Amino acid sequence: MDKFLDYVNEHQNDFVERLRKAVAIPSVSGDPAHRPDVFRMSEWLVKELKKLGADVETRDLGKQNWHGQELDLPPIVLATVGNNPEKKTILVYGHYDVQPALLEDGWNTSPFELVEDEQHRLIGRGATDDKGPVLGWINVVEAHKALGIELPVNLKFCLEGMEESGSEGLDALIADEASKYFKDVSAVCISDNYWLGTTKPCLTYGLRGVSYFHMKVKGPRADLHSGVFGGTVHEPMTDLIAVMSKLVNPDGKILVPGIYDKVRPLDDEEKKTYDNLAFEMEELHGAVGSKINIHDCVRKTLQHRWRNPSLSMHGIEGAFYNPGDKTVIPAQVTGKFSIRTVPDMVPAEISSLVVKYCKEEFEKLGSKNTFTVEPTHDGNHWLSSPNHPNYVAAAKAVKTVYGVEPDLTREGGSIPVTLSFQEALNKNVLLLPMGRGDDGAHSINEKLDRDNYIKGTQLLGAYLYEVSEIKL
Amino acid sequence: MDKFLDYVNEHQNDFVERLRKAVAIPSVSGDPAHRPDVFRMSEWLVKELKKLGADVETRDLGKQNWHGQELDLPPIVLATVGNNPEKKTILVYGHYDVQPALLEDGWNTSPFELVEDEQHRLIGRGATDDKGPVLGWINVVEAHKALGIELPVNLKFCLEGMEESGSEGLDALIADEASKYFKDVSAVCISDNYWLGTTKPCLTYGLRGVSYFHMKVKGPRADLHSGVFGGTVHEPMTDLIAVMSKLVNPDGKILVPGIYDKVRPLDDEEKKTYDNLAFEMEELHGAVGSKINIHDCVRKTLQHRWRNPSLSMHGIEGAFYNPGDKTVIPAQVTGKFSIRTVPDMVPAEISSLVVKYCKEEFEKLGSKNTFTVEPTHDGNHWLSSPNHPNYVAAAKAVKTVYGVEPDLTREGGSIPVTLSFQEALNKNVLLLPMGRGDDGAHSINEKLDRDNYIKGTQLLGAYLYEVSEIKL
Repeated sequence: MDKFLDYVNEHQNDFVERLRKAVAIPSVSGDPAHRPDVFRMSEWLVKELKKLGADVETRDLGKQNWHGQELDLPPIVLATVGNNPEKKTILVYGHYDVQPALLEDGWNTSPFELVEDEQHRLIGRGATDDKGPVLGWINVVEAHKALGIELPVNLKFCLEGMEESGSEGLDALIADEASKYFKDVSAVCISDNYWLGTTKPCLTYGLRGVSYFHMKVKGPRADLHSGVFGGTVHEPMTDLIAVMSKLVNPDGKILVPGIYDKVRPLDDEEKKTYDNLAFEMEELHGAVGSKINIHDCVRKTLQHRWRNPSLSMHGIEGAFYNPGDKTVIPAQVTGKFSIRTVPDMVPAEISSLVVKYCKEEFEKLGSKNTFTVEPTHDGNHWLSSPNHPNYVAAAKAVKTVYGVEPDLTREGGSIPVTLSFQEALNKNVLLLPMGRGDDGAHSINEKLDRDNYIKGTQLLGAYLYEVSEIKL
Repeated sequence: MDKFLDYVNEHQNDFVERLRKAVAIPSVSGDPAHRPDVFRMSEWLVKELKKLGADVETRDLGKQNWHGQELDLPPIVLATVGNNPEKKTILVYGHYDVQPALLEDGWNTSPFELVEDEQHRLIGRGATDDKGPVLGWINVVEAHKALGIELPVNLKFCLEGMEESGSEGLDALIADEASKYFKDVSAVCISDNYWLGTTKPCLTYGLRGVSYFHMKVKGPRADLHSGVFGGTVHEPMTDLIAVMSKLVNPDGKILVPGIYDKVRPLDDEEKKTYDNLAFEMEELHGAVGSKINIHDCVRKTLQHRWRNPSLSMHGIEGAFYNPGDKTVIPAQVTGKFSIRTVPDMVPAEISSLVVKYCKEEFEKLGSKNTFTVEPTHDGNHWLSSPNHPNYVAAAKAVKTVYGVEPDLTREGGSIPVTLSFQEALNKNVLLLPMGRGDDGAHSINEKLDRDNYIKGTQLLGAYLYEVSEIKL
């Protein structure tokens, strides 16, 4: 492993050059005009992987219907390095598509030309999300090939080109290949999230789920003039606002009865993971741009981000939304809200609690309008354990490369592929981020610090060594 | 007067032809592509009026800024028929522009070709709003000219071409001409509203005012991801919905303290005007398209439309409004609502009551977000009296032409020009509608019944006779 670590350090400029080439391909999956670039990016990866001796296959995912236009979906790139049955097989996932980026959005430099600034930040679209981490794995393979040593595990790649556009086709492929291409997988590692702050690596072992609801109030056949009808009919907006106001109080407490019943209590072991986290309230204030925090300490704030449910109201469809004044009584309005769910909440139970409560609250109004509420989408929460050997191995790797114990973090949002792999393969999934919390993944001036890229490459390799030696 | 009435009856086909020509000019003021048609319409009116011997002038209103584009405003057409200082001078107002209309909106016939159907409905855009009534006055002048008799009053026309687009420039012109062109005006008559129902003429003597408010909650610098921030920050939508829910209850009662204090009590005389109105709850249900009435009788329903205040919430700016799901925490949201005001509410007092109450309700939330609320616009209510000689004259005219006492109605919406004339000229203003309540002024298949057009023309003329003889 030491030889590997030295090699990475010595060849860091080569690796930066590789990242430069990857960033130069504007593989924006959300823009049909860039679809050929997404394909070009997949071909570039296939070539890189083949050059390093990997067995590479691509899987065609068929067509996408994009606003009535048929677009070819970029392929999933599957690659295998080593197939020694005596060794563990680690599956790594990443994506080679990126978010849109235009200089005029406010970038300081051309987004698809990698620039290294004075603070050694590698700036460019996709640098940290997720081309840097994907190349990190490839760098690990290259280092071993150059050193003439075998990887300590068999490595399988699963790289997709539609992550920023809903991962169309991915779940079906994972389910399909679970007992085929992925059948020997011992554990999964995904490097597609971020450190909590900017100074300390972390392992991420939990994600909140999300249950999304639409609540609709229908009244008149068509929009009415408030002069003619105001005061004489039950107005859908009045009813909707009344019911929506019963969902959550101003400090974030959800008012749906029973909603907290299955939230797992905080035990001492979990409590300890909140000690010494590399995060300050100032970082929250900076990210939000104002001091509107509900909780006054990091501990509470992160608990409410990671392990407690929350409810957000997103907007209303059907009402007046433009600037200016319009004296309309909207005929039909749909309130949109979602609940972030945590262990051990059960999405189906949450849905029925919410539906029942909203209907009761509407009944109380005594309105003659028509009310419906329905769950439109739910994604379950996900929780692994920092005690799982896959995580213990990763923690050792962090210690080796960074000399510190990693923060043990969870995230408030969802990364659906995590759950897809865990459910289809029934193997432990580890989230092992490379970049920092301030990388600006979907923003302008996205960056990956050179140090994170190089040490991150070391970390991914070191993890393979540690996980090869541990009993999974 | 009898000769006049007979003439109108005998020449009704000529008058329908005149309406056909007017409808054929698509004078849509809200569509820049039709602006030349609006000018063409003004020129057509000038020609018609000159042909009948009127003194005609036009007033240039300058330019309109339409989304950054400079458009010429259509002129105000001013015309005078007769200037006998012994006679009263009656000012009539109307507008020659129309709402947009496209066959594909759902019209059964081409909107700018007047069609008379089997029920003798004259169908076409502008038939009832407001070309029919404008031509009604012109028909009166033509009949007198043809009969070789003088009008019983001096008649002044004020015809605008921007009524459907905010009457830009009109108020300034009225104020400007109050002591000039309009200085001898004895009373004003506007025919630009509708019967209450479909069977009985009415005189309209009151309009509600409207006070519009924007209530803004600001939180983060930019929209946030609800996964990352949900549960940790005060969300502007939560606060806004909470305050909006305190404005009005589901049966329309406004919750702002003091708001009803100055609402004029219903006295016996006013109460009587609600007897025998030609209106049924079925007409409300038909217009609304569902049975969501708050009040179960005509009397209460119309009182709440005409003489009680109401509050409607129109929508939210800044929140998610598209179809589908989006897990956003909107950074800044503005709730829009308005209050319909009635005598003797004072707009300035209403504004301060609302602002004070909303601020107090926000304070109660204990949120760290920033809250502002402000009145954006107010138009005062207007109330004349059915006992005013101008109304008594009109009621006599109704009796002459229709053989019934008119309904005495008010309206829930505002017709700003009414107040403009009354305030600038300090003369009584009468609203004397020609069309029926189901004419569909701003809808598809707008119509004016032939009977309403012809009897309406008789009514406008008869009114001139009655008002000429009464002491104003």
